[in-house]
Amino acid sequence: MPLKELPPKALRLVGQISTAVAIIHRLREKLPIIKADPTKGHSEDFLRMLHGKDPSDIQINALNLYLILLADHGFNASTFSARVTAGTLANLHSAITSAVGTLSGPLHGGANEKAMDMIIEVGKKKKASAYIQNAFDSKQKIMGFGHRVYKVDDARKPHLKKMAKQLWEEKGNMELFEVAEEIEKQVKDRKQIITNVDFYSAPLLYGLDIPKDLFTPLFAMSRIAGWTAHVLEQYRNNRLIRPRARYVGPIDRTFRPIEQR
Amino acid sequence: MPLKELPPKALRLVGQISTAVAIIHRLREKLPIIKADPTKGHSEDFLRMLHGKDPSDIQINALNLYLILLADHGFNASTFSARVTAGTLANLHSAITSAVGTLSGPLHGGANEKAMDMIIEVGKKKKASAYIQNAFDSKQKIMGFGHRVYKVDDARKPHLKKMAKQLWEEKGNMELFEVAEEIEKQVKDRKQIITNVDFYSAPLLYGLDIPKDLFTPLFAMSRIAGWTAHVLEQYRNNRLIRPRARYVGPIDRTFRPIEQR
Repeated sequence: MPLKELPPKALRLVGQISTAVAIIHRLREKLPIIKADPTKGHSEDFLRMLHGKDPSDIQINALNLYLILLADHGFNASTFSARVTAGTLANLHSAITSAVGTLSGPLHGGANEKAMDMIIEVGKKKKASAYIQNAFDSKQKIMGFGHRVYKVDDARKPHLKKMAKQLWEEKGNMELFEVAEEIEKQVKDRKQIITNVDFYSAPLLYGLDIPKDLFTPLFAMSRIAGWTAHVLEQYRNNRLIRPRARYVGPIDRTFRPIEQR
Repeated sequence: MPLKELPPKALRLVGQISTAVAIIHRLREKLPIIKADPTKGHSEDFLRMLHGKDPSDIQINALNLYLILLADHGFNASTFSARVTAGTLANLHSAITSAVGTLSGPLHGGANEKAMDMIIEVGKKKKASAYIQNAFDSKQKIMGFGHRVYKVDDARKPHLKKMAKQLWEEKGNMELFEVAEEIEKQVKDRKQIITNVDFYSAPLLYGLDIPKDLFTPLFAMSRIAGWTAHVLEQYRNNRLIRPRARYVGPIDRTFRPIEQR
């Protein structure tokens, strides 16, 4: 759908969420708020509002890539919840609120933050092998690996990895990126578990000097494009989403008045 | 699950939502706010906070009946959206927020408000026949009839109807109740469409002097008991709810760089 045919409130939401994320960061860091500049591109302006300085071309490209690759992914849980809400003809903002709440769950939006925690905790390339071995031995979940949908490889992964590498090269410090690569290798050597989109999006965002606890808001900044598109599609050909549940509890129970319980 | 085993924040939410609904009503009517009285029952105290006077026994019974009958209904859209949100292990408040947003849709929470509009518009028993005939002739949707799940009858209906009747008898004015009964008869005489839970919950709530635009908040006040129970059940045996979508759009399209579009 061409941009100019989108309902203004859909387009506005996509712009507002990035401005809100940048402002929240500035406020909590007690830094002056930087106003949006509509003459700049979306990624460029977000990084400028966040950090208070013009980003490099590689930084702009990296964020663009992240926002595009993460924007949509079928009926993932947050998108699906937006559609369930929209299916009652609830308004766009209610549907997006459902999506944001669903994304906030650690099994959905929180994975790349946890992946970054691990990369930072390992810290040095040579420590990765012992860390992963220990994680396997203690049956600890390794974040950023495996996917409910992809069994072979996640098509988004190589692009995120390549772009993250470029970012850290520009920074002149490859240590954390190399830790990430080594973790990927150590896991692959032991079991056939592939990295997912969360794994390399972590060093990409961290390489853009985005604090870890903004990773999920950044995910929302990207996915809001997909969420709004799905909600508009749901409205166009709406059907209430109302599955049946099957009762599997005890049956033939006798009723006892509350006073006798 | 016994009350004392419920997580405090689940129990608190059930209490808070009724207090919030009463306060919103008092504030917008510019009436003084009445504090909750924990020594009173849930329905009794809500009506007291809303209207500023002690309700009758019939009024308390009527609201109790409404709250119990509407509290849960399988995987209706709002409950299902709460479970989709909870399935990512998002917190209880995020899940309930999804449910409230989903309930706000006119296809879900809005139906009894529309049913009441119709009953008030018809106004007199003798006008019902012409109104319904006209609605059928112009293929207008009649709110409060039909259900996605029930094809024979809605088991909740006779109880709501009987209680609504008692309420209006106590008021000494049967006119609107008789209009509702006549609409039900006129629809049934023409087609085999049954009233659903929304139809008689409208005169019940209106008979409790609850303004029409609080009908959906009252529905939320009831269903929050079911929503929290479902969310707690989801947490106990969690599995991410993530359906697959099938792409049915055009395929084999060639990529054109954005500058050339």
